[in-house]
Amino acid sequence: MNYKMIFRTVGQVLLLEAALLLAPVTVSLIYSEWMGALSLVISAVISAVIGFALWKVFGKCDPAIYARDGLVIVSFAWIAVSLIGALPFVMSGAIPSYIDAFFETVSGFTTTGATILTGEGIEGMAKGLLFWRSFTHWIGGMGVLVFVMALVSRAPDRSMNILRAEMPGPIVDKLVPRARDTAKLLYIMYIGLTVLLVVLLCLGGMPLYEALVHAFGTAGTGGFSVNADSIGVYNHYIQWVIAIFMLIFGVNFNLYYLLILRRVKDFFKSRELWAYLGIFIACVAIVSYSIFPLCENFSEVFRQAFFHVSSVMTTTGYTASDFTSWSAPLAKTVFILLMFIGSCAGSTAGGFKVTRIVILFKKIGNELKRTLHPHTANVVKFEGKRVDDATIEGVGNYLAVYIVSFIVIVLLLSFEKGFSFEANFTAAASCFNNIGPVYGVAGGCFKDHSVFSKIVLSLAMLFGRLEIYPLLLTLNPFTWIKK
Amino acid sequence: MNYKMIFRTVGQVLLLEAALLLAPVTVSLIYSEWMGALSLVISAVISAVIGFALWKVFGKCDPAIYARDGLVIVSFAWIAVSLIGALPFVMSGAIPSYIDAFFETVSGFTTTGATILTGEGIEGMAKGLLFWRSFTHWIGGMGVLVFVMALVSRAPDRSMNILRAEMPGPIVDKLVPRARDTAKLLYIMYIGLTVLLVVLLCLGGMPLYEALVHAFGTAGTGGFSVNADSIGVYNHYIQWVIAIFMLIFGVNFNLYYLLILRRVKDFFKSRELWAYLGIFIACVAIVSYSIFPLCENFSEVFRQAFFHVSSVMTTTGYTASDFTSWSAPLAKTVFILLMFIGSCAGSTAGGFKVTRIVILFKKIGNELKRTLHPHTANVVKFEGKRVDDATIEGVGNYLAVYIVSFIVIVLLLSFEKGFSFEANFTAAASCFNNIGPVYGVAGGCFKDHSVFSKIVLSLAMLFGRLEIYPLLLTLNPFTWIKK
Repeated sequence: MNYKMIFRTVGQVLLLEAALLLAPVTVSLIYSEWMGALSLVISAVISAVIGFALWKVFGKCDPAIYARDGLVIVSFAWIAVSLIGALPFVMSGAIPSYIDAFFETVSGFTTTGATILTGEGIEGMAKGLLFWRSFTHWIGGMGVLVFVMALVSRAPDRSMNILRAEMPGPIVDKLVPRARDTAKLLYIMYIGLTVLLVVLLCLGGMPLYEALVHAFGTAGTGGFSVNADSIGVYNHYIQWVIAIFMLIFGVNFNLYYLLILRRVKDFFKSRELWAYLGIFIACVAIVSYSIFPLCENFSEVFRQAFFHVSSVMTTTGYTASDFTSWSAPLAKTVFILLMFIGSCAGSTAGGFKVTRIVILFKKIGNELKRTLHPHTANVVKFEGKRVDDATIEGVGNYLAVYIVSFIVIVLLLSFEKGFSFEANFTAAASCFNNIGPVYGVAGGCFKDHSVFSKIVLSLAMLFGRLEIYPLLLTLNPFTWIKK
Repeated sequence: MNYKMIFRTVGQVLLLEAALLLAPVTVSLIYSEWMGALSLVISAVISAVIGFALWKVFGKCDPAIYARDGLVIVSFAWIAVSLIGALPFVMSGAIPSYIDAFFETVSGFTTTGATILTGEGIEGMAKGLLFWRSFTHWIGGMGVLVFVMALVSRAPDRSMNILRAEMPGPIVDKLVPRARDTAKLLYIMYIGLTVLLVVLLCLGGMPLYEALVHAFGTAGTGGFSVNADSIGVYNHYIQWVIAIFMLIFGVNFNLYYLLILRRVKDFFKSRELWAYLGIFIACVAIVSYSIFPLCENFSEVFRQAFFHVSSVMTTTGYTASDFTSWSAPLAKTVFILLMFIGSCAGSTAGGFKVTRIVILFKKIGNELKRTLHPHTANVVKFEGKRVDDATIEGVGNYLAVYIVSFIVIVLLLSFEKGFSFEANFTAAASCFNNIGPVYGVAGGCFKDHSVFSKIVLSLAMLFGRLEIYPLLLTLNPFTWIKK
């Protein structure tokens, strides 16, 4: 284990966080929120000092890192930015409890959107702090990766180790041979789509500040809003724009690169895209059928179904009305199922990922075929290419690890009295898959959970966002004992 | 597809069912229940006539069958015996609706123990019919296999095809080289343990009739009782005997063969056994902790925890008190989790099976180790032997198919209004894993479910009992279209 390189990189990440904290400072100053500005500045200074110290102390080190080092770096970086990112909320008094603030910040960086704030709590918070809260979604969305990428030294092989830990889901293609260029490209597309969304929201009459905040939440598939009623307070145009952009940010970014290259045919040939849209359309249809008796007209049925299926499937968690209280059992089952499915690999969304589901289904189909015709070849193809055995085995293993992790989370939450099985089950599903809303919890917020449960759920969000292995390895004593 | 051989074998199975129906006829005559006896005799005659017709019509056929034929035979046999086995309940008027009777009979043969009868319904039923109801558990317990085995022609290879479809879980070892001898051995051990249980129950003061019925339910890990309050009406000695015997019937029968051979050391070396007992002890401990405030003294805590963990983990479903109404969230989560785990492969229990879980955990451990030390060999060992890649891949695939099947069942149940997500989730878990009890359904019985849901749950029980593939293949049009 290359300890020095690990701490040095975490130091660099904290230096970058200090710089990023200047954005909400600016917002605070614009709105003359001195208390908010002060707490943000102090946090930035703390972040900078710790970061600089780590960077200096471990400055001279062997730059060679292996997969396990990459995984540990990613884990430490996410935990470090969350620990520091929570400070402004505590110092300003907006969220007095540090555990609550940590939960909220982890929820931000992991693009979950689960909150310990009530509706009044959100609407009463200073604008600069709310900006920071949503900005964490945007930073987390493309992963600490993007800024780790910019810092870590040049050798493409080394960077790819971190990239692999960070990139959500199994990816068949790399965009470009060099990891650094891949990161830059993803970054540009991410910014471009966010800017487009901000413009469209402003055109719909949303003030710039709110447009920025909601664009961050949409792009990062996070879900933090500045309103108690989330997107429900805006007009239908804005609801549609956000519904469609959530869907857009759930698509594999590699595909957008194909569009930039004008390889439109290849874009539409993607099996992953069609599976994603197929599941989406099927779920919109089922939810529409289920909530039909609850709505006034078909246009409302369709809008509500489209918005919330998009919101849950992309693991965003914005709401246009309180869908968790609808009395439509079928819709509820679909939403809970969607929590686990998630979106495409290589997107900002969480969940198990459509890509993995496609590979699993192909594998099952193969096995059934071979029972009928024992001499069928055992080849799984995806996007026209043969998927190598290691990837297939990896998907199977991930499914097993994923289920075991989920079960452990539900078990740990059950130690707390006062919540139903449904509440614990959906809280675990929501946090582990980085969505946000929850069934069977009063007000849909996590303020009444115990400190123990809040820590469990914070870890669940991190495990889900980093796809389990990095944290599992970091917490595994054997990682540290043996050389 | 060897149609003739398939129908001929199903015919033979029905002939055997006709013979087995004579047991409850005897009971009816002893208790002078003429109506019950008549309906059982008529059912036996119908079974015999259809069976004889199939056997005669398809008498001359090519005896060569392949894996797919074996799978289809098993599916058809289970459905056929359930369709006929439901007749006595309808004809006697005990269960007027045929769908209800079918549900009850499927629940019996699949050793589930889910019922559409209320407490009064059970206690008001004729003794002969109740005997038949529980006898189906015992027949189903070791699988139609055991009597299909006795009928299907001698070639060991051919029989193994059916055996593989029927034997619950992945089995590393075959007991003896010839499938027929294996079946005979299992049969003898099964009868021996059942007789021992009957004797022990009678010694505890249970009347012979009730001892037989509850021994059937315990041996088959079924769970039908003759009392509204199940095992709760008996003394502590009887509760302990049944709790321990449920645990005994959840162990791989191969291991008992080792005991017969006096290879006691090998018995205790079994990893599967220790994993099974380890999970059992851990769950008893957690449930004890959780229900401690609800009980009067520690002896009651321990008895309740032991009994119900044993009951749910072995997928039996007997109750010593109404554990589904305990206000202990942690215990509830453990019970719902146990519903999925199940017991050892090669036992009469259902569920995902401890054996598979052990293999999955070893696989995950391997992957983690390889991340730390990339040159670690990729070998999964089980019971001292290397597990071949096909078995490991099979376990991974089974996990995926298992989850997809479960999700489909929950989705289909959600079409019905009036049941909570928890009710649908646990109903699906309970039937699919062949347990019986359910959370959040009034009275714990399925009488209020719609006809559609009852059919879905009946299929769920069959899918679970046959481990999915046989029925999936039988329902797959491609099985029938192509040669």
